Amino acid sequence: MSLEMKDMSKLLETAIVSARLAGQKAMEQMEYAKTSVKYGCELVTDVDSKCQKLIIDRIKEAYPDHGFIGEEGSEGKIFKQAPRGDENIWWVVDPIDGTNNYAHHMPQFCVCIGVLYQNEPVVGVIFDPATDSMFTACKGNDAQLNGRKITVNEDGIDEFSSVSICSHIETPLPNWAIELISQTRYRNYGTAGLHFAYVANGGLAATVHSKVKLWDIAAGTIIAQSAGAIVTDLNGEKIFPFDIASYQGEALQAVASNPKINSELLALVQL
Amino acid sequence: MSLEMKDMSKLLETAIVSARLAGQKAMEQMEYAKTSVKYGCELVTDVDSKCQKLIIDRIKEAYPDHGFIGEEGSEGKIFKQAPRGDENIWWVVDPIDGTNNYAHHMPQFCVCIGVLYQNEPVVGVIFDPATDSMFTACKGNDAQLNGRKITVNEDGIDEFSSVSICSHIETPLPNWAIELISQTRYRNYGTAGLHFAYVANGGLAATVHSKVKLWDIAAGTIIAQSAGAIVTDLNGEKIFPFDIASYQGEALQAVASNPKINSELLALVQL
Repeated sequence: MSLEMKDMSKLLETAIVSARLAGQKAMEQMEYAKTSVKYGCELVTDVDSKCQKLIIDRIKEAYPDHGFIGEEGSEGKIFKQAPRGDENIWWVVDPIDGTNNYAHHMPQFCVCIGVLYQNEPVVGVIFDPATDSMFTACKGNDAQLNGRKITVNEDGIDEFSSVSICSHIETPLPNWAIELISQTRYRNYGTAGLHFAYVANGGLAATVHSKVKLWDIAAGTIIAQSAGAIVTDLNGEKIFPFDIASYQGEALQAVASNPKINSELLALVQL
Repeated sequence: MSLEMKDMSKLLETAIVSARLAGQKAMEQMEYAKTSVKYGCELVTDVDSKCQKLIIDRIKEAYPDHGFIGEEGSEGKIFKQAPRGDENIWWVVDPIDGTNNYAHHMPQFCVCIGVLYQNEPVVGVIFDPATDSMFTACKGNDAQLNGRKITVNEDGIDEFSSVSICSHIETPLPNWAIELISQTRYRNYGTAGLHFAYVANGGLAATVHSKVKLWDIAAGTIIAQSAGAIVTDLNGEKIFPFDIASYQGEALQAVASNPKINSELLALVQL
């Protein structure tokens, strides 16, 4: 069985509505969010789990038998419910990507919702509620920002272009991070979701992440790819198809870049 | 002669109105902005100078005899008009701080307007039009975001706190940058103005800039100080009073931090 465009359109519509609901809730609650620590080194707020519940409840109204995986489970674990029917469809949810910013009242955060069909991302939504920016994609179609087509840029690796890199890279700082910081007008907005979205709309030439989770990149991958980006791990290997059934929140690597600099960038990150 | 509170309130009101005008113009024009290169390594758009003109024209309606200094002059030079009366009051204007982001359609940019009286910042406004965030301060009063009091945070230098650093630091990358990237959840939003604003509202524990211009930090300094921050150069020396009459756009250094980490941070940046 394959997904048809009308199926994907309905999945996308559900993702958009859910992301908007959660994003609005997050904005309303930002000043009142209660922060705690999980995994010893990550901030989380009570709003993260409230928003995840909003999203999953809304999706289940339309798709009760689909699988769900999300950042916020009980007792510090991830949330995971396998699909109940024959369809291998999973919703991959990060209710607040950029929680550290959110907990500090910095508006750079987003809601990420991706749909994996047969272990490949087919639909993705990244919603930035602070600027009302809805990035969307649906396999086989253009990526869009608020309903208008977006594409990657053609920047090189140079002093005019921006490449974003993640926080909490290895210690000591690897050469590739030092090189990208030195050679480009590097950025770190503190949210992998927005980094992927900005690669898609031509804001960033590339983004490099050495430790992300599946929910940080599932939506971003289909959006960036649909805008013309190349998405791989740091060795240039494809991330998808991805064995989601056995995923338990392990750290992944991800690079998204415009095609022009992809080879040069991958050579650089393997320094 | 000294400035009274009612004088400063009127200066602040004029700054707010001008910043909002320019910010709205910048948002409207973002998709159509024409980009070129200045000083060999900086992007500038035609919207930068249009917004600066809007700001200065609006201020001159109220204060025709004040001095003005801004990023965008003719033929790649800075804009500078000395005060005509006896009052040593200068308006320090950056119409779009974060032009590289703006030119790449990333919404992290802001309008910065500072007022220097006898070479000290007394009024400051930083307006982020994409999120409708108006950061303001007036000497002797609390800093505010959209009319509500803001204060610095009490974060340390650690894995939960964010310290922002600038792009295009020296090559090779100095030790302090490597240490801050390794020890904190560092950020670089690509706009010194927003970095200072986020120190003020407790988003960032600190921001470190090794090459900024006066218009990047004049508004930010009074806003951050009014929120409880300490602002100095990288050696811990005060930046103000500042001899603005002879300033021609030379690069400055600036550190703004919460008081708790100030000594530790200054020791670190002098590594």
